[in-house]
Amino acid sequence: MLEELKQKVYEANMMLPEYKMVTFTWGNVSAIDETRKLIVIKPSGVEYNKMKAEDMVVVDLEGNIIEGELNPSSDTATHIELYKACASIGGIVHTHSRYATSWAQARMSIPALGTTHADDFYGAIPCTRAMTNEEIQGDYEKETGKVIIETMGQRMMEEVPGVIVYSHGPFAWGPDPIAAVKKAVVLEEVAFMAYQAMTLNPSLLPMQQTLLDKHYLRKHGANSYYGQK
Amino acid sequence: MLEELKQKVYEANMMLPEYKMVTFTWGNVSAIDETRKLIVIKPSGVEYNKMKAEDMVVVDLEGNIIEGELNPSSDTATHIELYKACASIGGIVHTHSRYATSWAQARMSIPALGTTHADDFYGAIPCTRAMTNEEIQGDYEKETGKVIIETMGQRMMEEVPGVIVYSHGPFAWGPDPIAAVKKAVVLEEVAFMAYQAMTLNPSLLPMQQTLLDKHYLRKHGANSYYGQK
Amino acid sequence: MLEELKQKVYEANMMLPEYKMVTFTWGNVSAIDETRKLIVIKPSGVEYNKMKAEDMVVVDLEGNIIEGELNPSSDTATHIELYKACASIGGIVHTHSRYATSWAQARMSIPALGTTHADDFYGAIPCTRAMTNEEIQGDYEKETGKVIIETMGQRMMEEVPGVIVYSHGPFAWGPDPIAAVKKAVVLEEVAFMAYQAMTLNPSLLPMQQTLLDKHYLRKHGANSYYGQK
Amino acid sequence: MLEELKQKVYEANMMLPEYKMVTFTWGNVSAIDETRKLIVIKPSGVEYNKMKAEDMVVVDLEGNIIEGELNPSSDTATHIELYKACASIGGIVHTHSRYATSWAQARMSIPALGTTHADDFYGAIPCTRAMTNEEIQGDYEKETGKVIIETMGQRMMEEVPGVIVYSHGPFAWGPDPIAAVKKAVVLEEVAFMAYQAMTLNPSLLPMQQTLLDKHYLRKHGANSYYGQK
Repeated sequence: MLEELKQKVYEANMMLPEYKMVTFTWGNVSAIDETRKLIVIKPSGVEYNKMKAEDMVVVDLEGNIIEGELNPSSDTATHIELYKACASIGGIVHTHSRYATSWAQARMSIPALGTTHADDFYGAIPCTRAMTNEEIQGDYEKETGKVIIETMGQRMMEEVPGVIVYSHGPFAWGPDPIAAVKKAVVLEEVAFMAYQAMTLNPSLLPMQQTLLDKHYLRKHGANSYYGQK
Repeated sequence: MLEELKQKVYEANMMLPEYKMVTFTWGNVSAIDETRKLIVIKPSGVEYNKMKAEDMVVVDLEGNIIEGELNPSSDTATHIELYKACASIGGIVHTHSRYATSWAQARMSIPALGTTHADDFYGAIPCTRAMTNEEIQGDYEKETGKVIIETMGQRMMEEVPGVIVYSHGPFAWGPDPIAAVKKAVVLEEVAFMAYQAMTLNPSLLPMQQTLLDKHYLRKHGANSYYGQK
Repeated sequence: MLEELKQKVYEANMMLPEYKMVTFTWGNVSAIDETRKLIVIKPSGVEYNKMKAEDMVVVDLEGNIIEGELNPSSDTATHIELYKACASIGGIVHTHSRYATSWAQARMSIPALGTTHADDFYGAIPCTRAMTNEEIQGDYEKETGKVIIETMGQRMMEEVPGVIVYSHGPFAWGPDPIAAVKKAVVLEEVAFMAYQAMTLNPSLLPMQQTLLDKHYLRKHGANSYYGQK
Repeated sequence: MLEELKQKVYEANMMLPEYKMVTFTWGNVSAIDETRKLIVIKPSGVEYNKMKAEDMVVVDLEGNIIEGELNPSSDTATHIELYKACASIGGIVHTHSRYATSWAQARMSIPALGTTHADDFYGAIPCTRAMTNEEIQGDYEKETGKVIIETMGQRMMEEVPGVIVYSHGPFAWGPDPIAAVKKAVVLEEVAFMAYQAMTLNPSLLPMQQTLLDKHYLRKHGANSYYGQK
């Protein structure tokens, strides 16, 4: 079932080593099907160069395995919460990519400092709050999703397609799994540039709102004019 | 028309991924023809590995498409302003290369700190001023070009073939599009080294004028003696 | 003798250039046999691309060469001390990998700052104390092993499979030589991220204990649930 | 003439792009012949991937071209001074490698901070003083060599096979051109690690003298015991 979506999720997962976003088996990409009732996700702890499209696991919105012989990613419950919270999300990616994860470890939001950021993220990429002991010791992966939603709210989830989980790492998303990985790659690039800029000029304030508006709206929404129509 | 120039502009564009100056479709290179009335430029938002020489777009100095089925780069109006301002510029490149863009995000000029810099740039690579809301909300890409010209003046545009656009990223230029890309690569290298030097020694002042003169003039002008004659 | 173990040690050594953990002949991986009386280790100063499985050297726990025509790694005596101190260690790796060695040169332990760290190391990766002149001028490599053991104690050696030797570089270990190299790669990744996080936010404290527990125990021990069973 | 030495110098030059030590045509390696009267050096401004062994230029100790159709490296006069000052030097390399050049731009010596440094350099890698206007405007490349010699003295040239030229970049040397390039690669690695260590721990002092002695003498001189005999 969902062979086409499995192929897409597989290809999106394989972009992670291609763009040097992962070490070993780290990272996972998922997609939700058109009915928004089934999720296709990378299996847990499987090496990228041995993984095949048919290894992708199908789960329902309660996390039950519907098809697949392998366990789904241990982060599946986080993905599910995000899909449930925001109907425009079709694909999600989680990595421990180097620069974004460094911001997570510094427990800081990535401020919008330039047009590279503004072209894809309409404002700072927020860092979530610390989770409580109860949240961590409870249904941890699900609670991680809830804290992301609490941090962003629905509108921000649409305009800022990525988040930094406190002491953990980034999640990013998009209308489909390939788009989600592209956002994760931009997030990593932006994390790099913001680190450099902040260490070079520690008193730096966020970029002008007008410039942020200009670049984001040049590429998104009714008046966009970037690329080919 | 302009098939030879299209081929050159194509090749110069393909140097961007080769030298790891771009992510995805970011970056664009253009050239102006001998009559200085037509510009050949990369199409907007097209992937490098799918792009062909015949995809290059020909526009006039008002930005009208003269030949080509794709939209020209969204930064075309910036390129046009620079060609109009300085008759010695034959090729222009814009990227979001990592280190130069970090300086743009820090809103700082790259000081001349060593001979690597002095061999190609005769003084600091300036950061433009913040654009006004009117400039950003108006004919933005054209205004970007105007602010670059305001920052540099014509003489500086000849001696310092690159600039850092505030909260944005670098532009570089040269007598032809290949030379422009080479300047952009050096600018990126110089941005890297200046970051390292400034964070290692924050009280650093610019290099000696005599040494700057020596290295720039060793390679440029009537008394140059570097390379093969 | 021990042909199978030599092959494994050879393969583990060849992971070092593959994961960009070494320059030239730097680095060495060893394993101990099932009887825990013989150690197989990389020969000293041999280039990776010329090395063969049969070049691996077999030594006993006094460091005597039992088989092999080449000298064993000059760090052999350090490896031996660690095998003798902790019966759960089956493979050891030493490198001068860039980021971990930078922490060694800064003479600082790598604090646990995020889940990437917690997934493999149950707490800070300690930096050893400075060795005394007597230790350095005496049986130096053996004393290096002793100082590592003094720093960690047996329980910590099991839960934190790596250490930073003061002014020197990292050692890492695991149940077999491949596992040891994987820990060294994670240690290097964690060293990178901790550098970035600490320079971005110098007042950073270690991560929450609850989160450290959660991630370490998600992957280790009786209640682990990561990966395929 | 000197075909064998030309081949070696060619191979040593080709190690520079292989080890990512150069951009474009930057960098140059030379060797001196057994009579110590002729120097073989890379031609000036020639691209590495188009260069052949027969392009190497032979010059005498006054810098006159003895054989070759291309101009020798513009840094030839600096190489000559170093060969004349220290009879144990058989090969010299100059690069603008990223990390070492950043130290040159910061105008700081690279302190000995760990065993990676001590294995090849017996103490800090010094940064030369600023050159005077007269030196820069006079026989610049020759004066550069003289300032290097003034900084190091002969004994230091033997024990510390590399130097950082103020606001410029590194020179390194060894008994032959391949050995010289290897020293340049280690110098670059050491420059990287020292940057990281100093920015992580700005109050860092140089490493213990005893440890410096131990590692340098483990690999050099009568009592060395590293590698294969």
